[in-house]
Amino acid sequence: MTPSVMALSTSAPSKKIDGKAIAQAVREEVASEVAELKRIHGEAAGTPGLAVVQVGGRLDSATYVNMKEKVAGECGFLSLKTLLDEKTEEKELLSIVQGLNADPRVDGILVQLPLPDHINQKVILEAISVGKDVDGFHPQNVGNLARIGEELRQQRGAPFSYKVSNNNACTPLGCIELLERSGVEMSGADVVVLGRSNIVGLPLAMMLIHRNATLTLCHSRTKDIAEKCKRADIIIAAIGQPEFVKGDWIKEGAVVIDVGVNFKDDPKRKSGKRMCGDVDYKAAMANASLITPVPGGVGPMTIAMLMRNTVENAKLRLAE
Amino acid sequence: MTPSVMALSTSAPSKKIDGKAIAQAVREEVASEVAELKRIHGEAAGTPGLAVVQVGGRLDSATYVNMKEKVAGECGFLSLKTLLDEKTEEKELLSIVQGLNADPRVDGILVQLPLPDHINQKVILEAISVGKDVDGFHPQNVGNLARIGEELRQQRGAPFSYKVSNNNACTPLGCIELLERSGVEMSGADVVVLGRSNIVGLPLAMMLIHRNATLTLCHSRTKDIAEKCKRADIIIAAIGQPEFVKGDWIKEGAVVIDVGVNFKDDPKRKSGKRMCGDVDYKAAMANASLITPVPGGVGPMTIAMLMRNTVENAKLRLAE
Repeated sequence: MTPSVMALSTSAPSKKIDGKAIAQAVREEVASEVAELKRIHGEAAGTPGLAVVQVGGRLDSATYVNMKEKVAGECGFLSLKTLLDEKTEEKELLSIVQGLNADPRVDGILVQLPLPDHINQKVILEAISVGKDVDGFHPQNVGNLARIGEELRQQRGAPFSYKVSNNNACTPLGCIELLERSGVEMSGADVVVLGRSNIVGLPLAMMLIHRNATLTLCHSRTKDIAEKCKRADIIIAAIGQPEFVKGDWIKEGAVVIDVGVNFKDDPKRKSGKRMCGDVDYKAAMANASLITPVPGGVGPMTIAMLMRNTVENAKLRLAE
Repeated sequence: MTPSVMALSTSAPSKKIDGKAIAQAVREEVASEVAELKRIHGEAAGTPGLAVVQVGGRLDSATYVNMKEKVAGECGFLSLKTLLDEKTEEKELLSIVQGLNADPRVDGILVQLPLPDHINQKVILEAISVGKDVDGFHPQNVGNLARIGEELRQQRGAPFSYKVSNNNACTPLGCIELLERSGVEMSGADVVVLGRSNIVGLPLAMMLIHRNATLTLCHSRTKDIAEKCKRADIIIAAIGQPEFVKGDWIKEGAVVIDVGVNFKDDPKRKSGKRMCGDVDYKAAMANASLITPVPGGVGPMTIAMLMRNTVENAKLRLAE
């Protein structure tokens, strides 16, 4: 080894997990898979289709929907956007979802949440075809995630006549992807997840158990939450409370994934606010070996994993 | 208070959770509900129906099936037993399940596991109607259990046009029932579950999270498992290893639920073996405030909860 290389290798490695760069890598991989699918199966069959449905004019929803449309385009997908009036009836939304279920061009259907109060969200989510449910919110996809061992049975050579769904929730998938691409060993690790939402905490808990982590799931009723964090090899915070996790809750060398997106008063900024996560980033950085920033950590991964789910569904369709 | 009563009340309360007595209480409650259903709706409509299907002649399966039939009869159910040859094809079993799905007399369908290797268990379990799946193994029922918050939405007054399933796995339901009837507070408690099977550990984990427990799920890849147990307010062992949990792993005053059914060599017995759980019962008794024995703890609860699931389905049918 030359001295100059040695000098390079002794410089402190960055502790920051760059979610922006990793999300970009995932999107590029998806785009190159799509190019390959089109080459093999032709433009018509080979193009994955993502349908996004938005009800009402919420600004945040519109922003998300537009971002999804843009990234889908960059990945080479067919992107179908349906914008519906705030007053759209449940019945009408249902029939639109059923139309998309039947549309052979569509591999992924995403109904942007939240829906207006007069629409039963569960009814709509359950109406989406299990195989096109790229958000992974259908109870059957949740249920497939909440079981283990099917793969073992498959390996044992039993007949295997059903299709396993790839559709799991995108934000927790993004957290797992960040850990995997950062070389973090999940098997045998003591992992504390803060938050038990249907969108992040619960599916993430299952994904970690599948990967042989020892899971502790903490929430508002948990006692001595700091003590539990202090014992964790990996902490994943998804509780939506600004800088809830303090620096001294982080064990030396632990890995921290921050799913929170919060705003805190900051008189130094023009807007009077700054974005922050569920973790006190600066303080946590002292003890953590790896940590995601907010913004630029988990955030960009959600849409990248949505693209991944959609292309996986297209591959299953083409393999039939 | 008279001195004699005082003398009685100062005698040490039993630490043993009597699963046999609690299971009997549950069965009696079910039987009296069934009597009431028959009184209100008449014998034909008011009788809950439980269909049990057994493929092949495994002795253990036959024993379980016969026990289920017997208890169903005691509860006043219609009990339908289908015994099929070991060589029955998947297609044939499927059509039998579909027939039971369509049979208006049947509120619960149970296909006894394990199935012979040539039959895909997942295909069969997914063919059982979600509303009659009294074993709670259908992915949609697993998925309903693995989500939270629907009840909140319901309370908010949103339209509520779907039926929530009551069908969750019977053994974990039995553990919860034992804790509830023993007055054990789950909310905020640190609970360690040992084992992550689809039949016990995973659904139990979800049930505990629903009840505001802080869950730590341990398994074969978990490090320092003794340390984790020592911090637990409640330990539930379901790993199938004889007396794996040692007495000094139990925190003073902790509650211990032992799901294990194992056999250990015992030269003092005629059979040369004795039944034991996953916990060293005698040693654990010293520290535990409450503990289930094996046999006579969790075991009798499984069938009692199966009866509970069936009568709940019948009540939903009659409420339609």
